[in-house]
Amino acid sequence: MNGPEIERLIQLLGRLPGLGPRSARRVALHLLKKREVLMQPLSAALADAARAIRPCSICGNLDTVDPCSICADPRRDTGLICIVEDIGDLWAMERGKVFNGRYHVLGGSLSALDGIGPDELNIGSLLRRVQEGDVREIIVATNATVDGQTTAHYLADRLADTKVPLTRLAHGVPVGGELDWLDEGTLATAFKARRAL
Amino acid sequence: MNGPEIERLIQLLGRLPGLGPRSARRVALHLLKKREVLMQPLSAALADAARAIRPCSICGNLDTVDPCSICADPRRDTGLICIVEDIGDLWAMERGKVFNGRYHVLGGSLSALDGIGPDELNIGSLLRRVQEGDVREIIVATNATVDGQTTAHYLADRLADTKVPLTRLAHGVPVGGELDWLDEGTLATAFKARRAL
Repeated sequence: MNGPEIERLIQLLGRLPGLGPRSARRVALHLLKKREVLMQPLSAALADAARAIRPCSICGNLDTVDPCSICADPRRDTGLICIVEDIGDLWAMERGKVFNGRYHVLGGSLSALDGIGPDELNIGSLLRRVQEGDVREIIVATNATVDGQTTAHYLADRLADTKVPLTRLAHGVPVGGELDWLDEGTLATAFKARRAL
Repeated sequence: MNGPEIERLIQLLGRLPGLGPRSARRVALHLLKKREVLMQPLSAALADAARAIRPCSICGNLDTVDPCSICADPRRDTGLICIVEDIGDLWAMERGKVFNGRYHVLGGSLSALDGIGPDELNIGSLLRRVQEGDVREIIVATNATVDGQTTAHYLADRLADTKVPLTRLAHGVPVGGELDWLDEGTLATAFKARRAL
């Protein structure tokens, strides 16, 4: 019923995460109504970002410069490496402003089910970084899922020879979380890891 | 923490309906990872649609041709006009495939609160269409809200002189709806308008 340009736009919008066919139509209509203030700027922003974006040759982060702005920042501690599965995890850590070292993005986690082995992840470059650099501590911040924990153990094996101390994020009750809503695994872990008040 | 191109993209995505700052970041990350299969095509589709789109001079629909593909379709009945508030309503009617006439998009509803009077809506062009054309029936399909019903009554007044029969959509229980979840107003209307089984 619409022109092919509109149908194509709706179809592409529907492939974005969190947007189904219905919300894609809603977004498309909103864009069509705000052609000058939103649609054209968004098109340009997408083209600009697509043109400028490149993976960081050191850590695997995506940025418009290589090395990325985190790896290139002289104020950040080069002795600390935080290993994350995905760029989204890196963004989450940065939002939390808890870490002042550098990252290493694996690009996923080991998964027998999805056929992802060590060769599919950025592990070779990690080992080179640790061997070449002056690294004091490696924080393994993979997800607390089965795949994430498998990956963490695999990395611990591979990094054992380097003698660099490895740490992982603490498990426990999320801040602001209610006990009633927590799963038993988290509760048991938090109980075992209890600390003096 | 990210380059300005990425931050600008996240900011623009966050202005789409249904996307908050968190989901805008998620969408941006997804796009950055699928640069060639999604990001560049979406940028091009937005630019193409923004360039091609124009309002239909007859009904107010947005399409890539003027008159729009509905007004230009010779298989559609020119004697029926369905008045809708918004293009989204027109799309909904077309999805339902219930109507084979033509539309008239008001561009909103009368609203004292939002300061929208008759002059802000496409009412002049509607009156001209009805006076000039050979119209057998006008279906007023404004929303079943207070503003929508006010608009419907206003239109009925303005169109009274043309002697064209006016109808409105039936109110009642939505198909698939459960009585327990319905508001009292709908239930009372459905009861009053009950029909022989």
